[in-house]
Amino acid sequence: MRLPLFVIVAAAMLSAAAPPVKITPNDIVAHSPASAWKAIDPDDLLVMNLAGGRVVIQLAPQFAPVHVANIKALARGNYWDGATIYRVQDNYVAQWGLNESDKGFPAGVTAKPAAEYTRTVKGLSITPLGSPDPYAPGAGFVDGWPVAFSKKAGWADLTHCYAMVGVGRDLSPDTGTGGELYAVIGHGPRQLDRNIAMVGRVIEGIDRLSSLPRGTEALGFYRDRAQYVPIASIRLASDMPAAERPAFEVMDTASATFANYLRLRANRYDDFYIRPAGGVDVCNVQVPVRRKS
Amino acid sequence: MRLPLFVIVAAAMLSAAAPPVKITPNDIVAHSPASAWKAIDPDDLLVMNLAGGRVVIQLAPQFAPVHVANIKALARGNYWDGATIYRVQDNYVAQWGLNESDKGFPAGVTAKPAAEYTRTVKGLSITPLGSPDPYAPGAGFVDGWPVAFSKKAGWADLTHCYAMVGVGRDLSPDTGTGGELYAVIGHGPRQLDRNIAMVGRVIEGIDRLSSLPRGTEALGFYRDRAQYVPIASIRLASDMPAAERPAFEVMDTASATFANYLRLRANRYDDFYIRPAGGVDVCNVQVPVRRKS
Repeated sequence: MRLPLFVIVAAAMLSAAAPPVKITPNDIVAHSPASAWKAIDPDDLLVMNLAGGRVVIQLAPQFAPVHVANIKALARGNYWDGATIYRVQDNYVAQWGLNESDKGFPAGVTAKPAAEYTRTVKGLSITPLGSPDPYAPGAGFVDGWPVAFSKKAGWADLTHCYAMVGVGRDLSPDTGTGGELYAVIGHGPRQLDRNIAMVGRVIEGIDRLSSLPRGTEALGFYRDRAQYVPIASIRLASDMPAAERPAFEVMDTASATFANYLRLRANRYDDFYIRPAGGVDVCNVQVPVRRKS
Repeated sequence: MRLPLFVIVAAAMLSAAAPPVKITPNDIVAHSPASAWKAIDPDDLLVMNLAGGRVVIQLAPQFAPVHVANIKALARGNYWDGATIYRVQDNYVAQWGLNESDKGFPAGVTAKPAAEYTRTVKGLSITPLGSPDPYAPGAGFVDGWPVAFSKKAGWADLTHCYAMVGVGRDLSPDTGTGGELYAVIGHGPRQLDRNIAMVGRVIEGIDRLSSLPRGTEALGFYRDRAQYVPIASIRLASDMPAAERPAFEVMDTASATFANYLRLRANRYDDFYIRPAGGVDVCNVQVPVRRKS
């Protein structure tokens, strides 16, 4: 019953003059064609193994190439074996790494990368959000990623949304190496945009980070080492045996399917929602990602 | 040393032409005058007692008077003794109450309240956010609360920001009674604005909800009753013995102090932040609340 109804409804949606129909963003995902998805390169998948299970991170080399290259070199060099999650600040971030350890970096790590807080907007094909953004002249989506941008000033950057991953750093002008990373576990702290290098997002297991006990020291650091959450290892999927390697797809944000999804995210109207907002925050769009194996 | 410096700096900030100064929103709170704060009425404070400690909720009767009156009647009638937190959905909400129990309501509860999803904008003195809002023509602050509004259409409502509390309900046109409540524990799901009755916010202990294990059933419901988190009781502060009663103050959002705080929230510039955004999302302002006893 659902699919035929959906087809009728999807056809009706193509007309801008059509009345509101009772269809949800999840319906769009459930009935999307295979052509609306793109495989994620296993060389851009970072697998963090915790005692309770794994956290999978998709890396974004097109936004912070040097920091992402560092992260890959650190993973390949087993740098994080024995690392911990040592900071969990409520409505902000969970952070992990070696925390002030003086363990040396493996080969191939750039010790003092340039900022990479933004990249040039040139060459990016942006699907616009279609709603105003409080933090930037424009917001939208590129290659499955949420971005903010200024065409006039020429920059684009990944936005600090829930589950996005950034590079911990000291006070400016330090930019961090990638050895200390954090994931957003609260309302998107967009004030960090353009002030820090963003390198990816958690696409599986963010709840393993967001449900951790909050640290009671300033900035959410754990007080005692006994509270640190051990990380068994962090590996690139491309370095794992083929049989164990996870595989994911992300919705193509240039597709017609995503355009429909985005429109419904901004205009919820179904048996639960009765008043569509007519707009949406870039962090509430949540580009669909799905597991393939 | 800090206070004199701050006074100089605060004076400099009053000039719009002044250069950026290295002061943080927390500095504004730390050095605020007593006149910038308003006491919260103990009759608007709901104290939820869990095994690990308490969660304190400030109620907003001016936005949903019937639902808030219900909540007060339910607290006074000990309705929630033996209730549980039975739903924790990642990046969304934690929800509690009696979950499908047929326990009767105490006296004074309106069984089928009108919607109260919005109220009239008339009579509200709004401090504007000063940044565009994706979900409404305007956003700002009233009596310490984050709001969205349309002066043209005549409505205002509380916004679904982190830690805000709303009334669980069934499909429309059901509006809920107040017996089942939820708190936002992720990125503000603003698409719920104007589709549900908002009744307050958690002002202490939100981490006791946000760090709970996520439910594995659809919508984050816990699978087994054994996973439910017991609630010992929920009481109004005004019904507690004076010695045990918590007391809180909220920053006066009509004050000059809040205006400075808001400006710095939109323009972070200090030893960590080097690029001020020039704007801020209403949910990232986080009106300061402090405990008095």
